[in-house]
Amino acid sequence: MRVKDKDYKTVWMQGSSVFMIDQNKLPFQFHIIELKNHKETCVAIKEMNVRGAGAIGAAAGYAMAQAAIESQSTSDALEFVLNAKKEIEATRPTAYNLFFATKRVFAAFHTSIQNAIDEAESIAYEDVNACKMIGAFGNELIKSGVKIETHCNAGWLAFVDYGSALAPIYAARDSGKDVFVYVDETRPRSQGAHLTAWELYNEGIPHAIIPDNAGAWLMSRGEIDLMIVGADRIAANGDVANKIGTLEKAICAKEFGIPFYVAAPSSTFDLSCPSGKDVIIENRSEDEVLFQRGLDSLNVEQIVRTSNPGSGALNPAFDVTPSKYITGIITEKGIINPTPDEIKKAIG
Amino acid sequence: MRVKDKDYKTVWMQGSSVFMIDQNKLPFQFHIIELKNHKETCVAIKEMNVRGAGAIGAAAGYAMAQAAIESQSTSDALEFVLNAKKEIEATRPTAYNLFFATKRVFAAFHTSIQNAIDEAESIAYEDVNACKMIGAFGNELIKSGVKIETHCNAGWLAFVDYGSALAPIYAARDSGKDVFVYVDETRPRSQGAHLTAWELYNEGIPHAIIPDNAGAWLMSRGEIDLMIVGADRIAANGDVANKIGTLEKAICAKEFGIPFYVAAPSSTFDLSCPSGKDVIIENRSEDEVLFQRGLDSLNVEQIVRTSNPGSGALNPAFDVTPSKYITGIITEKGIINPTPDEIKKAIG
Repeated sequence: MRVKDKDYKTVWMQGSSVFMIDQNKLPFQFHIIELKNHKETCVAIKEMNVRGAGAIGAAAGYAMAQAAIESQSTSDALEFVLNAKKEIEATRPTAYNLFFATKRVFAAFHTSIQNAIDEAESIAYEDVNACKMIGAFGNELIKSGVKIETHCNAGWLAFVDYGSALAPIYAARDSGKDVFVYVDETRPRSQGAHLTAWELYNEGIPHAIIPDNAGAWLMSRGEIDLMIVGADRIAANGDVANKIGTLEKAICAKEFGIPFYVAAPSSTFDLSCPSGKDVIIENRSEDEVLFQRGLDSLNVEQIVRTSNPGSGALNPAFDVTPSKYITGIITEKGIINPTPDEIKKAIG
Repeated sequence: MRVKDKDYKTVWMQGSSVFMIDQNKLPFQFHIIELKNHKETCVAIKEMNVRGAGAIGAAAGYAMAQAAIESQSTSDALEFVLNAKKEIEATRPTAYNLFFATKRVFAAFHTSIQNAIDEAESIAYEDVNACKMIGAFGNELIKSGVKIETHCNAGWLAFVDYGSALAPIYAARDSGKDVFVYVDETRPRSQGAHLTAWELYNEGIPHAIIPDNAGAWLMSRGEIDLMIVGADRIAANGDVANKIGTLEKAICAKEFGIPFYVAAPSSTFDLSCPSGKDVIIENRSEDEVLFQRGLDSLNVEQIVRTSNPGSGALNPAFDVTPSKYITGIITEKGIINPTPDEIKKAIG
């Protein structure tokens, strides 16, 4: 997508370096970082310089390719890459795309280093194409003039390009429809207010940031026609692990009869995971709740404590939305009903 | 309640001045402000130096008493006080206690200025006693060891003393029970993270701040036994206007079978308002969503922009929770079922 009249992807590889847009600096600074080896890429994934299902998957694939290149100068190449795989997989345990990517590149590494690199590139390329298709299928759900709510960031920054939840919105805009987007702030890390708002602003799509508290109220007033969110992992029964707050929105959408769609490429499905109960949920540091990042009056970035000094916080980073609250899952293969049979038929 | 080993009320009058804890400075600074006339008190109510149903009511009563005193030096005392009443009522249109207070003091003013002052004191005194009784009735709902979620601040800072939603928690603690409180951050103004957390911290009650997004997830995991919130206005049919996000929590609590109580003195009921549909909802400045207040690394208070520069926001400050989601309303007269008949019997 476009940033300052230039086309960018979220993450890419050149030689043995991985490059990525530093999402921890957005929306206040646009900055590209270079990661020279797999360990640096691991830190970037863990520290969320790159985040979002597809982008993590691509970054993890590239990190594996880096490990494959590095393994040339080790005594036991297989052991080295196997250890790297474990390191990479430990960075973000909730992100299923990460495991999908490490597994594929590891398998390719058994044949050759070049194959490992090619496989990592394929993962990124497939991600781009899947997102394009998600946009096309999702666009069919959108009538001109609708108001769409989204949670967190499942835009192009969360993938290699286009995005999942925002792809239908970009496709609708490209096909001449009017859309308005309510952007959930998405505390504690404010991916909505930081990243989704940044994307929509750069693309010129009308939008308003809303506090996470406002969703149900706007729904009850008929202000929301449709809700689309992303997913970090989808179980075989259609339960969806996604950013904390997704469950709350899905329950409210159902209560008010508002269609609630999850948009995700098929790589997000984990058919070995029977239901949402089996998903491990990542708890993150309480500091993400207690402190926030912003620009002061001199446009200098500051980390400020926005909670009562002395009080602690609880920070469950993800939740699981049972399939009964989900209207459908928009994938690159079409829109799927969130039932075990339909999922097996489409993805299995 | 206690602050640094001294007893305080939220707002009080001395001579012709109104004094209040500046809640816009909490939790980072504890500061008392003096308001020398009713116009200054109006600004304080509008700017939310004082906030919360009962405290606004008391402040509005005191502002009316100030206007009564000031009217002595005007040519048309009645007109002056009537104009002051309108100014006061325009400060926070959603806060029903405000109208309750201005009406009472205005009626008393017809007999004498001293009666107006006494009436304002009575309103504050009744608020304290009502909150004490809410604590006693609410305490009966609390078993030792429970985990209670609360939204926004309906603690003593929201009243003259004790509070509504937190009064049962203070009463439970005083009667030797163990309680743990999950404090909703309550964006955009973070009254939970700022005020409720400050209160609980000062009172030594175990608590954790949670993002507004985390409620449903914790409920689904059995982490919440009970939810208690305050109210800004309760309609004759039991619908409750309260801080934005209350509706969302109430829907989720019902979904998970968790008792959802509203705690409010009977002055919060507006029997002339048939249902929640008739409540005017205040929209506040988008800057409350786009900017946040916090302490920087040098412990200096800063206002920082925490959203994408260029993006706008929508800031509906309150929502209406239909009575069907409410288990009961804890008042100073007992716990009431949120039905028109029960409310009429208890309050009417």
